[in-house]
Amino acid sequence: MRLRGRKGIRESLEEQQDIVVLNPKEYKGKWSSLFGNDRPIHVEFGMGKGQFISQMSYRNQEINFIGVDMYDELIRRASEKGRLAWAEEEVESPPNLQLALMNIENVEDVFEEGELERIYLNFSDPWPKKKHGRRRLTHPRFLDKYVRILNERGEIHFKTDSVSLFQFSLNAFADYGLQMTNISLDLHAEGPNEEFVMTEYESKFYSQGMNIHRCEAIVGQEALERYRKQRLSKYGV
Amino acid sequence: MRLRGRKGIRESLEEQQDIVVLNPKEYKGKWSSLFGNDRPIHVEFGMGKGQFISQMSYRNQEINFIGVDMYDELIRRASEKGRLAWAEEEVESPPNLQLALMNIENVEDVFEEGELERIYLNFSDPWPKKKHGRRRLTHPRFLDKYVRILNERGEIHFKTDSVSLFQFSLNAFADYGLQMTNISLDLHAEGPNEEFVMTEYESKFYSQGMNIHRCEAIVGQEALERYRKQRLSKYGV
Repeated sequence: MRLRGRKGIRESLEEQQDIVVLNPKEYKGKWSSLFGNDRPIHVEFGMGKGQFISQMSYRNQEINFIGVDMYDELIRRASEKGRLAWAEEEVESPPNLQLALMNIENVEDVFEEGELERIYLNFSDPWPKKKHGRRRLTHPRFLDKYVRILNERGEIHFKTDSVSLFQFSLNAFADYGLQMTNISLDLHAEGPNEEFVMTEYESKFYSQGMNIHRCEAIVGQEALERYRKQRLSKYGV
Repeated sequence: MRLRGRKGIRESLEEQQDIVVLNPKEYKGKWSSLFGNDRPIHVEFGMGKGQFISQMSYRNQEINFIGVDMYDELIRRASEKGRLAWAEEEVESPPNLQLALMNIENVEDVFEEGELERIYLNFSDPWPKKKHGRRRLTHPRFLDKYVRILNERGEIHFKTDSVSLFQFSLNAFADYGLQMTNISLDLHAEGPNEEFVMTEYESKFYSQGMNIHRCEAIVGQEALERYRKQRLSKYGV
């Protein structure tokens, strides 16, 4: 039995080699070559339909973005959104966006140590049952992986509507010894916060009046030093 | 002009020297002598009517407790609750409870360096306006004081219904470099959590279906080492 339409999607992805990477393991340590420059690389693990990564790539053209998900259909939808975000520019392809088909379990086969500068985790599956805790993308076994593939300026930016996942993640970051900053329990308290591009889920949850939780976890030593300098003035003490 | 009844309250407090301390600065460095033993001292800053500190003193008789507030009337009500909590025991006074009339601004005049083992901050005034941020009891200028008066096993246990104060406090603890643990965004999610004694506010907020937020911040080096050993097994990794 074959899932209806599956073949059509895969063929479509194969024709989009300008922004779709079906064999990401082959680029381990070579992503900068693929982008053709040495700009920082920001990755979203679990990009879903790709609204966030598409908007981010268009708004931050000095950064290279990689959107990651494990289903052909999501890569296809993200490729549409990515092209749409760049539609008004005279470019054949979004120049700083790649979409990688992969399972996040395998990030270490796809990214070299220190190859990334930022990881975005947006509205990851909360896996509410305790026995599934190991699948949460902020579980320390994943943090182990992230810490390895992030560089000296590395940060993890995390947001979710799920109170239980946010609680789990704050504790996981704290227990791991990561420096947290910009913790928010209601990101859009004073209207939509335009500083942060919304995901599909986020727009929906926000319109339903649900709180969005967010925090940053600092991984790299250089990022930590920059942060320490900034915070001196933060409280006006 | 004299507030009606004020004199009566002060006289009542003066008659309760077994558990009421109207001149707490005189006990700086001498609280263990007042209790008559060397047990750890836990203090609640802003005890209000004293339900929490009274229950805690009865449930944890191996600990010495000091409830702090700045109004005569609150000290008086707390003294009633304190005696009530111990009413079934054959004691003249609650042996491990003292109620201190003081302004928390002056904690360093009342407690010696390392004299306390734990500070409880329960439902502190959120001071929601930004210009009043310095008055919040988790502002770094207060953390400076707490860190000094806490000992090697020192911890700060904080809970609040206020989303904005909790957010402020998480950031303040994190920025201060304190190790956070047991962060909870909904303390009584699965029914009232009997492990934690409720304050008056807390009972009311809980019955209204509001989330109680809680976290612990580890201050002392010995507490930090104990915590590090414990957390190894926490995630089952």
